[in-house]
Amino acid sequence: MRFADRMGRVGPSAIRDLLRHGADPELISFGGGYPDPALFPAGELHGVYAELLSGDPAALQYCPSDGLPELREHVAARMRRDGMDCTAGDVLIIQGAQQGLDLAGKLMLNPGDTVVTENPTFLGALIAFNPFEPAYAPVRTDEDGMDMADLERVLSRSPRAKLLYTVPDFQNPTGITMSTPRRRRLIELANEHDLLVLEDTPYRELRYDGDSLPTLKSLDTEGRVVHLGSFSKILAPGMRLGWAVADPEVLDRLALLKLAADTQCSTLNMAAAARYLDRHDIDAHITAARAGYRAKRDLILEVLQKTFPDTVAFTTPRGGLFTWLTFPAGFDTAEFMRDVAVPRARVAYVPGATFFPTTPEHNHARFNFSGMSDDDIVAGITRLSTYLNW
Amino acid sequence: MRFADRMGRVGPSAIRDLLRHGADPELISFGGGYPDPALFPAGELHGVYAELLSGDPAALQYCPSDGLPELREHVAARMRRDGMDCTAGDVLIIQGAQQGLDLAGKLMLNPGDTVVTENPTFLGALIAFNPFEPAYAPVRTDEDGMDMADLERVLSRSPRAKLLYTVPDFQNPTGITMSTPRRRRLIELANEHDLLVLEDTPYRELRYDGDSLPTLKSLDTEGRVVHLGSFSKILAPGMRLGWAVADPEVLDRLALLKLAADTQCSTLNMAAAARYLDRHDIDAHITAARAGYRAKRDLILEVLQKTFPDTVAFTTPRGGLFTWLTFPAGFDTAEFMRDVAVPRARVAYVPGATFFPTTPEHNHARFNFSGMSDDDIVAGITRLSTYLNW
Repeated sequence: MRFADRMGRVGPSAIRDLLRHGADPELISFGGGYPDPALFPAGELHGVYAELLSGDPAALQYCPSDGLPELREHVAARMRRDGMDCTAGDVLIIQGAQQGLDLAGKLMLNPGDTVVTENPTFLGALIAFNPFEPAYAPVRTDEDGMDMADLERVLSRSPRAKLLYTVPDFQNPTGITMSTPRRRRLIELANEHDLLVLEDTPYRELRYDGDSLPTLKSLDTEGRVVHLGSFSKILAPGMRLGWAVADPEVLDRLALLKLAADTQCSTLNMAAAARYLDRHDIDAHITAARAGYRAKRDLILEVLQKTFPDTVAFTTPRGGLFTWLTFPAGFDTAEFMRDVAVPRARVAYVPGATFFPTTPEHNHARFNFSGMSDDDIVAGITRLSTYLNW
Repeated sequence: MRFADRMGRVGPSAIRDLLRHGADPELISFGGGYPDPALFPAGELHGVYAELLSGDPAALQYCPSDGLPELREHVAARMRRDGMDCTAGDVLIIQGAQQGLDLAGKLMLNPGDTVVTENPTFLGALIAFNPFEPAYAPVRTDEDGMDMADLERVLSRSPRAKLLYTVPDFQNPTGITMSTPRRRRLIELANEHDLLVLEDTPYRELRYDGDSLPTLKSLDTEGRVVHLGSFSKILAPGMRLGWAVADPEVLDRLALLKLAADTQCSTLNMAAAARYLDRHDIDAHITAARAGYRAKRDLILEVLQKTFPDTVAFTTPRGGLFTWLTFPAGFDTAEFMRDVAVPRARVAYVPGATFFPTTPEHNHARFNFSGMSDDDIVAGITRLSTYLNW
């Protein structure tokens, strides 16, 4: 059959392969992006679902496509507390932040339009945008996030730039956070170049050191920022709930595209999230989860420091789920994983090349720590280090 | 901002408006497409969720993007019983059948490609396809479904026809079922014209009279049919679970687009559906639900027969959720709803014009009966009839 050409852009997926790997108990995999199931509020959710399912069957019925009103209210209140001017009407409930990427791509992109991203960037975003056949313009990043001089240069050469995608807090894959001055400058440049800014914040509440920085949405002066958030890392990914906050002109369009894509999110899961937020203190839960993840971050950095050769650099993320390793030039992390790490050390990670939208660099790797047991972190890193005796 | 042109095609949505109407207790609305919440197996689902949430937290975690393996197995077994050659590997779990429309549109359609549909057709399908900017080629229908001579004529004039969309069983909006000879002929024509056939079967198991007819997928000779099914009408729509069955070449592509669109369906809801199918007899549940819906269908047809003037025709659906009314030529059901039905009779329905992909006819209306109480069916139809005294 004559499939649409756009399908040529959707190649085999490293993420999908990794989700499959996740089921193999033989391997210690640092490859996932999973939160720790021991940190899910399973008891509280048990109570909430039991309550919802023993009463009125409304939670099993259809509901408004924009999302359950009580959940939109809760999200709006949390967004206001985080410095954004937001009411329930500015919130669209979506199937995880990932769906926000698909909807924003559909909203903005015609074939050949340019998406500006961090270099490297989140693989799931490339997978979401690819079917709309964009060109990518990656921007150099350092320890303060996107380099604004490079962004300016990239934009001056990209007349078809329509969408700027960023994970400003504890980025996936690098763990890096964008500084406040750069956030302000990014908004100025977006205004100047008439861009929609897609601010993806799945890890924002998992900060382990220092103070929270203002969201891009809170700095938005012309209604150009779509802020995406997610319950996956603060409640449970299996509920598939996230949200988009945007100005009315944009949100109305996203809401229609949401309706077109899948009618609505699960009424039951939305009702459960809202009821959980009514009955329980999610901030206390996040504080506890944060302590658990902080300990895992400290542990992986400590073991990397102790066991890996000095020629392998790694980032020190102030939050989130990942650290990003840089091996000496010429080292190929994909080859090493295939030939040594998986078959001999029985350790997996995500080779870094896949996160570069245009020109892959082969000497990086993304390591997750949040979904791993302490024992696996120590054993996996230590085992791998014994194959790095240069 | 310069939104993609495709957004021009996504207009205000009658479905979304109706989902909002659904919350207004003043009005008797025949406008929904809701199953009856009294027929949900709420007690059994309560037990299943309680069991899942008191054990291992895996149901709250991520899982493979194609769907939970045990649910794919259950669906495949049901598809085999329904005459399709199908294993778990041929099944993709999706966010209701609606997501199958979005994914198939993304798979097949470049701007200007032609989608062939019944005339009238399901509004949700038009909403799903519109962002891909197709042309529509609607095919005349009668009491046996799509007219095959007209389909042949339409295809001979549509060199860019790529996708044929049909609801063969108890169609939305008309309630009509395609005959077996026409199903066979449709497959021949799809082969001849190199089409992908999208067979949407949300109501298939809600048959009230006569024997089940073979699915298009069971008649498929060249792997051209994508069969879509849904748990929304046989279990509960609030779980947002459906499935696609397709040949490997097509299914692999749909699976990648699913991953790109929203990562996966809710692990918890998939686990609950699978556990429900392990523990309980869904066929006994469907038989009971069917009896309830059959009684509602009989009731609405009886009250229409008794109270409406003979100049208003209506279909006698052998299953599903809807009957389709045809008023005398010149009568405008949208105007009548706005000026009389809603403000005076306090009754709503879906004016038929919205279901025609290219040339609206204004003298039809879709009436749902499945989501209504018996009292509302009698009161709503009777009240409306008093304004039809020609």
